[in-house]
Amino acid sequence: MNTRKPTIAVTLGDPGGIGPEVIVKALADPDLRRRGRFRVYGPAAALDAAASAAGIDPYWNRSAHSLPVVSTAGGQNVTVLDYAAGETFPREANRASGELSFRLVEDSIVDARREQGDDRRVNAVVTGPISKLAWNMAGQGQYPGHSELLAMRTGAKRFGMMFVSPRLRVILATAHLPLMDIRNALTIEKVFDAIDLGNDACKKLGVAAPRIAVCGLNPHAGEGGMLGDDEMRVIEPAIRAARERGIDARGPFPGDTVFNAAVNGHFDLVVAMYHDQGLIPVKLLDRDRAVNVTVGLPMIRTSPDHGTAFDIAGSNRADAGSMKAAMELAIQMCARGE
Amino acid sequence: MNTRKPTIAVTLGDPGGIGPEVIVKALADPDLRRRGRFRVYGPAAALDAAASAAGIDPYWNRSAHSLPVVSTAGGQNVTVLDYAAGETFPREANRASGELSFRLVEDSIVDARREQGDDRRVNAVVTGPISKLAWNMAGQGQYPGHSELLAMRTGAKRFGMMFVSPRLRVILATAHLPLMDIRNALTIEKVFDAIDLGNDACKKLGVAAPRIAVCGLNPHAGEGGMLGDDEMRVIEPAIRAARERGIDARGPFPGDTVFNAAVNGHFDLVVAMYHDQGLIPVKLLDRDRAVNVTVGLPMIRTSPDHGTAFDIAGSNRADAGSMKAAMELAIQMCARGE
Repeated sequence: MNTRKPTIAVTLGDPGGIGPEVIVKALADPDLRRRGRFRVYGPAAALDAAASAAGIDPYWNRSAHSLPVVSTAGGQNVTVLDYAAGETFPREANRASGELSFRLVEDSIVDARREQGDDRRVNAVVTGPISKLAWNMAGQGQYPGHSELLAMRTGAKRFGMMFVSPRLRVILATAHLPLMDIRNALTIEKVFDAIDLGNDACKKLGVAAPRIAVCGLNPHAGEGGMLGDDEMRVIEPAIRAARERGIDARGPFPGDTVFNAAVNGHFDLVVAMYHDQGLIPVKLLDRDRAVNVTVGLPMIRTSPDHGTAFDIAGSNRADAGSMKAAMELAIQMCARGE
Repeated sequence: MNTRKPTIAVTLGDPGGIGPEVIVKALADPDLRRRGRFRVYGPAAALDAAASAAGIDPYWNRSAHSLPVVSTAGGQNVTVLDYAAGETFPREANRASGELSFRLVEDSIVDARREQGDDRRVNAVVTGPISKLAWNMAGQGQYPGHSELLAMRTGAKRFGMMFVSPRLRVILATAHLPLMDIRNALTIEKVFDAIDLGNDACKKLGVAAPRIAVCGLNPHAGEGGMLGDDEMRVIEPAIRAARERGIDARGPFPGDTVFNAAVNGHFDLVVAMYHDQGLIPVKLLDRDRAVNVTVGLPMIRTSPDHGTAFDIAGSNRADAGSMKAAMELAIQMCARGE
């Protein structure tokens, strides 16, 4: 009976951030727990503290991460793979937390890559928020974030950051780099890849024939060349290449009007040229409901759209909506992948 | 009795765009007409055509622009200062329309700068949408838009583009330039000026002690320097300078979360570093209700937040909400200025 339920790895993220709190709150919903088997990678002490602060009775089984015994006793479907790491966690970037949160992701990737039939295999990974600064302190500064680590470990040549929220789907052509470095990063290939990967991802999410809007880079999408030529040099050729391959991509459209068109149902996906162009509308419309999906990987990975929020960590004020949405989307994607 | 009603100049914008339509529709509201005296600068033939398409009976008096006889006969409070310019207007950028729309703005500025007591004086200017490309064709390419022309003609040393909508106030530190040119344009002085001008404007709009949020330029506001140093080099010094002058400016905050904070009432104004960063949230939340205000001028100027929309011009599909809001805000600002 339970054999078709997907197994979802959930990495705790930075133990001093709001990761433990949003995981405990999200999985407190018995309906969600019935739809999958969850394995939480991280120190059980952090989860215990979050549950205590939220007034939630611990509902999970516990196992040593090094020798996991995954139990579904009590029908709870949640096992914590415990990483003993002390009892308290600084609410700021530090080396120890960076090392731990990095290791959790690495271990979850290993488990996602295991053979079919291996008990330790997971069908998807949902990652809790990490501190990039802590990863840097831990000597892992070469990875700007989860996505790059996942791509490296899985050998993915092309990958993209996509955001799925109730009203918008957005994929980024460039992501975590200084805004002025876009000049060198935004190539025809990068824009084409975002269109192509986003098109594939929309199909996997159930959109049969995705209608894709591509943003311009400059104000008014360059206003016919008067406000920049990146549209003509880079974006238009990428759109043409996508259309030649049968993808229904259109644009470039001005960034300040295209999202309205998408919200009003004219497009299934918007391709944004840079981080804030895509994330401002997603977070403004659907804060606490948006999910980050890494597309192009040979595995399923989702995450909430927020960071560690050290400033409110430990105070039981975090909204678990985005984490819960990330878990639900991972389950949906597992079902479609079968 | 009518002596306290402000006189509002309304320039028609590009005669082939949606300017005539939104002006005719906005002023069709008798309540609005009762609150001010309006002088529409532009070819009456364009207004007649828009009224005919919208099924609105012309409600205005007419005068030659060169020798205006402003009449309030019939209590309509709307006089068209007619610029004879043919009967039809191309629905695309062209030199003749560019020359005309440029001249309308110039004439309105002259009238706004007249002495008190001069019959031709206007108290504020509301500008209809122009085509920058048409201005370029007309040999006025040195003005990227209305704001720069207004600043030049009034001798304003500092000016800024601010957007006022029901849920957000946003001012831009840079506006109509290619995104990658921000590197040279975004100086401490530019950011400080935007904070300072925005602070003054908020006070004029009735906010006694404006709380101002300043955006970062880079993703995550630079993430402590890992994703760019513009925050440390430029934006933080500008915020410090503003605070030293008693302005309640805070930040820099990540662009993708700060607008939520403002919408939720934590700030009265957001200072955006570039066009799309500020305009994406305004247009997504309050499309057809946002007003563009040029701040720092020795005169009042507002405009709708949309362009000429040549693609829908003449089809009676334009929403006049933003034009009407621009007229209403101009009237409010005149009242506060007395």
